[in-house]
Amino acid sequence: MNEPFIPIILGTARPGRQSQSVAEAVLDVAKQRQVSADLIDVADYPLTATGAASAAKSLDHYRELVAAADGFIIVAPEYNHGYPGELKLLLDSEFAGYSRKPVGIVGVASGRIGGARMIEQLQQVTTALRMVPVLPSVNVTNVTEAVNAQGEFDTTTLGTSLDDMLEELEWYARQLSAVRS
Amino acid sequence: MNEPFIPIILGTARPGRQSQSVAEAVLDVAKQRQVSADLIDVADYPLTATGAASAAKSLDHYRELVAAADGFIIVAPEYNHGYPGELKLLLDSEFAGYSRKPVGIVGVASGRIGGARMIEQLQQVTTALRMVPVLPSVNVTNVTEAVNAQGEFDTTTLGTSLDDMLEELEWYARQLSAVRS
Amino acid sequence: MNEPFIPIILGTARPGRQSQSVAEAVLDVAKQRQVSADLIDVADYPLTATGAASAAKSLDHYRELVAAADGFIIVAPEYNHGYPGELKLLLDSEFAGYSRKPVGIVGVASGRIGGARMIEQLQQVTTALRMVPVLPSVNVTNVTEAVNAQGEFDTTTLGTSLDDMLEELEWYARQLSAVRS
Amino acid sequence: MNEPFIPIILGTARPGRQSQSVAEAVLDVAKQRQVSADLIDVADYPLTATGAASAAKSLDHYRELVAAADGFIIVAPEYNHGYPGELKLLLDSEFAGYSRKPVGIVGVASGRIGGARMIEQLQQVTTALRMVPVLPSVNVTNVTEAVNAQGEFDTTTLGTSLDDMLEELEWYARQLSAVRS
Repeated sequence: MNEPFIPIILGTARPGRQSQSVAEAVLDVAKQRQVSADLIDVADYPLTATGAASAAKSLDHYRELVAAADGFIIVAPEYNHGYPGELKLLLDSEFAGYSRKPVGIVGVASGRIGGARMIEQLQQVTTALRMVPVLPSVNVTNVTEAVNAQGEFDTTTLGTSLDDMLEELEWYARQLSAVRS
Repeated sequence: MNEPFIPIILGTARPGRQSQSVAEAVLDVAKQRQVSADLIDVADYPLTATGAASAAKSLDHYRELVAAADGFIIVAPEYNHGYPGELKLLLDSEFAGYSRKPVGIVGVASGRIGGARMIEQLQQVTTALRMVPVLPSVNVTNVTEAVNAQGEFDTTTLGTSLDDMLEELEWYARQLSAVRS
Repeated sequence: MNEPFIPIILGTARPGRQSQSVAEAVLDVAKQRQVSADLIDVADYPLTATGAASAAKSLDHYRELVAAADGFIIVAPEYNHGYPGELKLLLDSEFAGYSRKPVGIVGVASGRIGGARMIEQLQQVTTALRMVPVLPSVNVTNVTEAVNAQGEFDTTTLGTSLDDMLEELEWYARQLSAVRS
Repeated sequence: MNEPFIPIILGTARPGRQSQSVAEAVLDVAKQRQVSADLIDVADYPLTATGAASAAKSLDHYRELVAAADGFIIVAPEYNHGYPGELKLLLDSEFAGYSRKPVGIVGVASGRIGGARMIEQLQQVTTALRMVPVLPSVNVTNVTEAVNAQGEFDTTTLGTSLDDMLEELEWYARQLSAVRS
C-alpha cells in the first residue's frame, strides 16, 4: 500500500501568525514518518463568502487536495474561544471530500490553555463534515517562548503528544483508506 | 464475520422518561438489520460518584458489555442544553473499552430542537473517550406526540435519519472491528 | 433615559443568503419597540485576516457602532454545525466594546434544527467577548418556506420566541447601560 | 445594601476528590471580600434521577440556597472533556432560582488544560439556566502539585485569575440583585 497522504492545514492568515512556525515543524515531523505530507495554507485561497478572487491558488486546487487526502492535520490558533473565520470559510468550501477521513488538531496559543476550547468547537465542525476527530490533540502553550529568532518552533515542548496523535491519525488513515469506496 | 454487537444505551433514569419508548423502538429497528443489539438501561447501574450500591446490575457487567461491543447507540434526552448526569456517570465509569468504536446519538425532546445541543456536547465526550461519532444523528422532536397510549414510539416520524445513522454506524462497526487489535 | 441602541448583525455574506430576509424582519419588529435599531451587514466590512480592503465601510465604523451599542442581536445561518467564517472575522476585529452588553442570537436554517448548534458555539464566543448571552434564542426552521416571493420573512412562524428574546435583551440592555462605566 | 450571597458549589462527589481543597481555598478567599459565601457540596444532596434518598440534606435545602443566592461559583473537575454527572444532576434539580444571576467557574485538572473544556460545556448549561457566565474563568492545572500534605490548595498558583473572576462576579451580583424582581 502507498503511504497515506496527510495534508497539514494552516488555519490562520493573520499577519505575524506564529501558527506558521508550528505548522512547518509539524510538517517536518510528519515527513520523517511513513506518510506523504504537504502544507495547505489558508492564506493561499480565496475567501468564499465574498467571492474575493485575489488569491494564489484556486478553490478547485483545495478540493483536489482534499479529495486526494487520507487524513488531515489542522494547525490553528484560538481566537475568543473559537476557530479563525478564514479557516471556517475554507473548510466550508467543500463537503464530500472529507468523509470517513481522520483529522488531528493542533491548537496554538500564547497563553496556558493551548487552544483547547478552539479544538472542541473544531471537533464539532469536523464531525459535521463526516471526518473522524482523533485524540490526543496537541496543545501548544506559550507559543511565543517556543519559537526562536529564526522562526523555528521547538517540538520538544510538546512531550509525546504530537507523536501520539500522528500514530492514531496514521492508524485511521491506513485502515479507512483501504476500505473507503 | 459475525454480526457486529451494537448495544443501545438508554441514557436517562428519570421517572416517566419517554426516551425509553424511543430506545425500545430503536432496538426493534436495529434487530431487523444484520447486527446483534441489546439494551443497556442507565437505571440498572449504580451511580459511581457516590458508591450507591442498590442497583440491579454491577458496573462490571456494564464494562463487559462495553468490551464486547463493536459500536454504540445512545438514546438520551436533552436537559438544559446538556446530557443527563446519570448518563455521564455511567460513561465515565469505563475508558479503554470504548476506543475505536463508532457511536450514533439519538436526541429526544418534547420541543422542536430534538436534543441537538445535547448531541453536540455528547459528541465531545465520546470523542474524548476515543469513540468515533457518526452522522447523521437522530433528532426526536415533540416526542410526546409520537408515543401512543401503549408507550410505543412511531419511528416513521424520523424520516430516513435512523436508517441512515444505522447504515453509517454499521459500516464503521464492521470495518473497525476487523482491524481493531 | 434614552432608548437602548441594539444593532442587528447580519452574519453571512454568501450570495443568495436568506438570513438577510430574517434580519430585515427582525429589524422591523425591533423598531416597533422602545429601542433604537440598525443593521450591521457583515458583507459591508473588510475581512480582517487578509487585509482585503474592497469594502463599503471601514472597520473603524464597525467599532464605533459596537462602542455605541447597548446590546446586540446576531442573525446567522448554521454551516456544518458552526458559525459563518465571515461573522467570526468581524466579531474578532474588536474586543473591549462588547463587554457587559447582552446578545440575543437568531439561528437560520433550511432544515429542522434552526441553527441550534451554531447558537451554542456562538454563545461560547460571545461569552469570551464578555457579552451576556440571553435566552430564549430564536430558531428559524425551514427558512425557505417562510420567505415569500418578495423576499419577506414571515415572523409569525416564530411563535413568541422573538418577542421573548427581545424582552430579555432589552431588560439587560437597560439595566447594564445604566451602570456600565 | 447587604453583601451579596455567593455560594460555592463543589461539583464532584468522587472519593479522593482534590476539587474539595480548591473549593475550600476559594471559600477562604471569597470570605475576605465584601461578600457572604458558603459551600454547597454536591455529595450532601440526593441524586434526583434515581430518587436515592440517603443524603445529608434535602433538595429543598439546595433550592432555598439557590433562591437566596446573588451569584454562584462552581468548582469542578473535568472528566472526559465534560462536567461530572453528579453536578449536572444537582443543577438540573432547579430552574427558576438561577435566573439573572452571575456564575464564575473554576476548572480543576491534574493535567495542563485546567478544565477548560468542561468550563465551555458548563457555560452552555448555565446559559440555558438563564445565569450570566462571567470571565475570566479559573483554570487549576496540575492540581496534585498545588495541594500540600494537609490538603490545602495554594491559591498563589492561580496568578490574578481568581481575584479577577471574583471582581467581575461581584460587579454583576451587586448590579443585578439591585434590579432583579
